[in-house]
Amino acid sequence: MSSSLDSGPDAGLGSGSSSGWFTEVFDSHGSAFSLKVTEKLHEVQSPYQHLEVYATETYGNLMVLDGCVMLSDRDNFLYHEMIAHPALFTHAAPRRVVIIGGGDCGTLREVLRHPGVEKVTQIDIDEEVTLAAERFFPALTASNDDPRAELMFADGVQWIEEAGDESVDVLIIDSTDPVGPAEGLFKTDFLRRCHRVLRPGGVLVQQSESPLYHSGTIIRELRRDMREAGFDSVATLPFPQPVYPSGWWSVTLAGKALDVTAFRETDVTAHELPLDYYTVEAHRGALALPPFMRRLLEE
Amino acid sequence: MSSSLDSGPDAGLGSGSSSGWFTEVFDSHGSAFSLKVTEKLHEVQSPYQHLEVYATETYGNLMVLDGCVMLSDRDNFLYHEMIAHPALFTHAAPRRVVIIGGGDCGTLREVLRHPGVEKVTQIDIDEEVTLAAERFFPALTASNDDPRAELMFADGVQWIEEAGDESVDVLIIDSTDPVGPAEGLFKTDFLRRCHRVLRPGGVLVQQSESPLYHSGTIIRELRRDMREAGFDSVATLPFPQPVYPSGWWSVTLAGKALDVTAFRETDVTAHELPLDYYTVEAHRGALALPPFMRRLLEE
Repeated sequence: MSSSLDSGPDAGLGSGSSSGWFTEVFDSHGSAFSLKVTEKLHEVQSPYQHLEVYATETYGNLMVLDGCVMLSDRDNFLYHEMIAHPALFTHAAPRRVVIIGGGDCGTLREVLRHPGVEKVTQIDIDEEVTLAAERFFPALTASNDDPRAELMFADGVQWIEEAGDESVDVLIIDSTDPVGPAEGLFKTDFLRRCHRVLRPGGVLVQQSESPLYHSGTIIRELRRDMREAGFDSVATLPFPQPVYPSGWWSVTLAGKALDVTAFRETDVTAHELPLDYYTVEAHRGALALPPFMRRLLEE
Repeated sequence: MSSSLDSGPDAGLGSGSSSGWFTEVFDSHGSAFSLKVTEKLHEVQSPYQHLEVYATETYGNLMVLDGCVMLSDRDNFLYHEMIAHPALFTHAAPRRVVIIGGGDCGTLREVLRHPGVEKVTQIDIDEEVTLAAERFFPALTASNDDPRAELMFADGVQWIEEAGDESVDVLIIDSTDPVGPAEGLFKTDFLRRCHRVLRPGGVLVQQSESPLYHSGTIIRELRRDMREAGFDSVATLPFPQPVYPSGWWSVTLAGKALDVTAFRETDVTAHELPLDYYTVEAHRGALALPPFMRRLLEE
């Protein structure tokens, strides 16, 4: 390690440059994270957002949407395992799964590892994300040809509005931050519709930002909104995620006529999925929130 | 959040400037972490290292040694709780505790929360660290007047060399990285002496770098060295630490005639210590390593 006061990670990277550093500044939290990049591999302005892919020196490929890091080859396993497996092992027997967002297809891949799942529909508004994932993150899209997988490029909010009552077992909101195209996914009306679409015993899971930065704000509000939308139980699970603000992230589960603070522990212990992070102990440990979070989340 | 390509966190902080960003670059890992600083509060070149204290916009005060972030007001609770409590709750009844390093006194404070502890000696080579902590991190040094606390400013390696056989219950190596003044603390000879100094049933705990960056290197070697030094069991516990490289850190415990993969769970559940992170579930969850770490640590 070495410090850098006079010249920083950004010094070498002019806009459009192909070498230097990529930096994401978290303005409201006074912190920033940088990765050394060797090349900009891809850049496209979709109707919804600005998408870039960089080759980094040590994190593999890096996808960036509107300047925010979405995922890297090196550490996306943490997020994708934690948004998929806790929810699927909390539901008693998930067969029908819907993913809103998730265009990089990493969550889809994890869901399809569950042999009991009969159909997964992924609805991302922006096809450019999936096209970029196919080219630059082929490991994540490796399951896209699974006959159980259905990929749609459409407005997830509208899809949920039109979906049949009690038609889904697990609903995964794998979105960007609650600004820009994903804003509608963090509203009570949307959560009410999610509740309607879920079968009894169903699970909703949503990425829910940083335990350090957002426990007293976004996470607390999301949990309150989930309860107001009719869900009977909520559980926030923190996990490490180096490329996201503070290096610490979370998902929040909500149960419809189901307690999401319990899960199929025996099945988790017995599974032979090729996972890198998720275990029965990781799930249990995450369910028991750190005391500082418990205090901030108190409603 | 916003991205920054043309001008980065460092742009505003010239050496000696009092406003802008402080950035730590992790060269060998191609990443960097930055905090917005409002003022440099303190700077001193000790005989051992270069010490700086900054006021940050959102992390409180920040201590930096030789350009590496040591701790911030905002998130030091994670490190200090995890280097102290797992070790103390693993030992059956710790009375005599020794801290090598730890000059900021945050670990000392956590150790003194255990009423059964009769004496804690902290041996840091650099008194400037403690002087800076007293001025700029008074919460951490709040227990320094406890009659059970002894602060020494001396060479920890030599102190261990001269310490009596089987005279210590818990030995905490709260050091900087294994380069510079702390290099001698990561060597097998030193670990052998630690083993000699510990009573049977004793616990050694050492900070052991990033699970993401160092599982296959520093952590793996430390665990092997601990076993070679005579310890009967080892356990590496990961935990989040936003200001450290990758935002994910670890401590490694080693037991002398003791299994460090078990701990006094009932006592942890019963305690009423004012903690922010450590719980019985956090300890259990940390003990069960993520599969990717298990594979990298396999000896």
